[in-house]
Amino acid sequence: MLAGGVGAAKFLRGLTRRIDPRRVHVIVNTGDDEEFYGLHVSPDLDTVTYTLAGMSNPATGWGLAGESFNALGALAAFYGKGWFALGDRDLATHIYRTDRLRQGWPLSRITADIARKLGVKARIMPMSDDRVRTFVKVRGRAAMPFQEYFVRNRARGRVERIELRGAQQARPLAQALDAIKASAAVILAPSNPFVSLGPILALPPMRTTLASLRERVAAISPLVGGKTIKGPADKMMRGLGHEVSPVGLARLYRDCVGTLIIDQLDRRYLEPLRALGINAVATNTIMSTPARAAALAQVVLDSIQV
Amino acid sequence: MLAGGVGAAKFLRGLTRRIDPRRVHVIVNTGDDEEFYGLHVSPDLDTVTYTLAGMSNPATGWGLAGESFNALGALAAFYGKGWFALGDRDLATHIYRTDRLRQGWPLSRITADIARKLGVKARIMPMSDDRVRTFVKVRGRAAMPFQEYFVRNRARGRVERIELRGAQQARPLAQALDAIKASAAVILAPSNPFVSLGPILALPPMRTTLASLRERVAAISPLVGGKTIKGPADKMMRGLGHEVSPVGLARLYRDCVGTLIIDQLDRRYLEPLRALGINAVATNTIMSTPARAAALAQVVLDSIQV
Repeated sequence: MLAGGVGAAKFLRGLTRRIDPRRVHVIVNTGDDEEFYGLHVSPDLDTVTYTLAGMSNPATGWGLAGESFNALGALAAFYGKGWFALGDRDLATHIYRTDRLRQGWPLSRITADIARKLGVKARIMPMSDDRVRTFVKVRGRAAMPFQEYFVRNRARGRVERIELRGAQQARPLAQALDAIKASAAVILAPSNPFVSLGPILALPPMRTTLASLRERVAAISPLVGGKTIKGPADKMMRGLGHEVSPVGLARLYRDCVGTLIIDQLDRRYLEPLRALGINAVATNTIMSTPARAAALAQVVLDSIQV
Repeated sequence: MLAGGVGAAKFLRGLTRRIDPRRVHVIVNTGDDEEFYGLHVSPDLDTVTYTLAGMSNPATGWGLAGESFNALGALAAFYGKGWFALGDRDLATHIYRTDRLRQGWPLSRITADIARKLGVKARIMPMSDDRVRTFVKVRGRAAMPFQEYFVRNRARGRVERIELRGAQQARPLAQALDAIKASAAVILAPSNPFVSLGPILALPPMRTTLASLRERVAAISPLVGGKTIKGPADKMMRGLGHEVSPVGLARLYRDCVGTLIIDQLDRRYLEPLRALGINAVATNTIMSTPARAAALAQVVLDSIQV
């Protein structure tokens, strides 16, 4: 599975009800990684890890359940008030990750170690051990790092461009490419195509590798009735000149995705998608409960005959 | 003032009731500094800073009042159970210090910045911007860093040797030497003579500078009736072959200390001390309240005619 944050994590919670989590490899976007207070924060990795560990905050989808924010309050005395919520127990993860990075561990080793120590059985890995940074250019402003756009500025403004800095020079994780080649199915999570899956697909030769396995690759549309459940994918599609529909999404993915799972509300797009050479399937994609996420996972697996 | 941790901080709380805190320069031991979880912890600097900021935990003397330990609990999942208590708000200080050190700030600048941001008016400075590490050799064991001896092993065992690694190569902070030369009085806190004040005095030319100003230098004995109120100074004196009395202490300090303030319970040592060429004064040295600490401070100031 290629994964961003909250949507991917919800889906994974369902998928791991249907297949042995030890068979699931999750390749996670790290273009949103950011340094706060000198600590390396990997929001998508943590969201996936915490969710699969059963530790995530169900109200937000990110962060830890029952979290406190006392350190963050004290940090404000030194740095001024922060705009990125880091809980006390969440901080432990960033402190550990940063400590290990400084000791020279690659992010992939640290990620696996954290997952193991939190009891996660699925194999979670960053898309790369190299640094890629996603910048968002909004009308009237200089390009800014993704978290600044998304959290600090609450995704305001018309998106004009996404920059994936370092992606051309970065190598995808070797284990990620190996897992993709060895897997019966590759699933693109219902994550943002530009800022969540975009960075993963931008790592050469990720995209051409998927293209060579296209019939085993399925994507889940994050759109429901022309909107995303969460996050700015719809606004970004519009801002970047794409049709905000499963057809617009299919045009972004069709070289490497053979199957597109769309919401039942969008079933009128089934024929246009098939005309584009895509195996299109409509179902309920809203993962309001783990059981619904599991049902969606089953539809995805069935659609590529796993 | 030359300071260690809790005893020094208590005295400073009294001293700053008697003289304008902006006139007080505190030169603090950093031989006990330790890295935990990749974060640079300066226990004595923090104890002094938190106490003068009115934020310290009155029950322990160290740490912050009303502290929580949620991050520490989460760190245990990654590192195993820790033996050094770092609270959530306290962690913010270590995160900030570490971040600034990595940006190249000297510890002295960071220390002043933290104190200012927490509203402390006295000038708190580390003894040096260079690294000195205090090791304690206990019978039957290899020499260990001070915090491991003191916190992890609860100061158990007979102390055979104190090693101040790096002290000969370290330079005392220039502002510290300047402050000492410009001050009407230099006070050695009732701190441990080996592991708190010892590292400061070991930095050349700290000791000879004090010796040249000996008549303005007063020390407060940490002993009361042959024991320390807190900490292992008495055990260390015994282990290292010194008489556990104000006379034993005076022999350690007499080249650079002109005045020794001893507890009223030890007044029988006044004559022997004077015979050693020390201006000895007996008073109540137990700082059970800030008012008593202030009264002690006044006796110290009077004893060297400030």
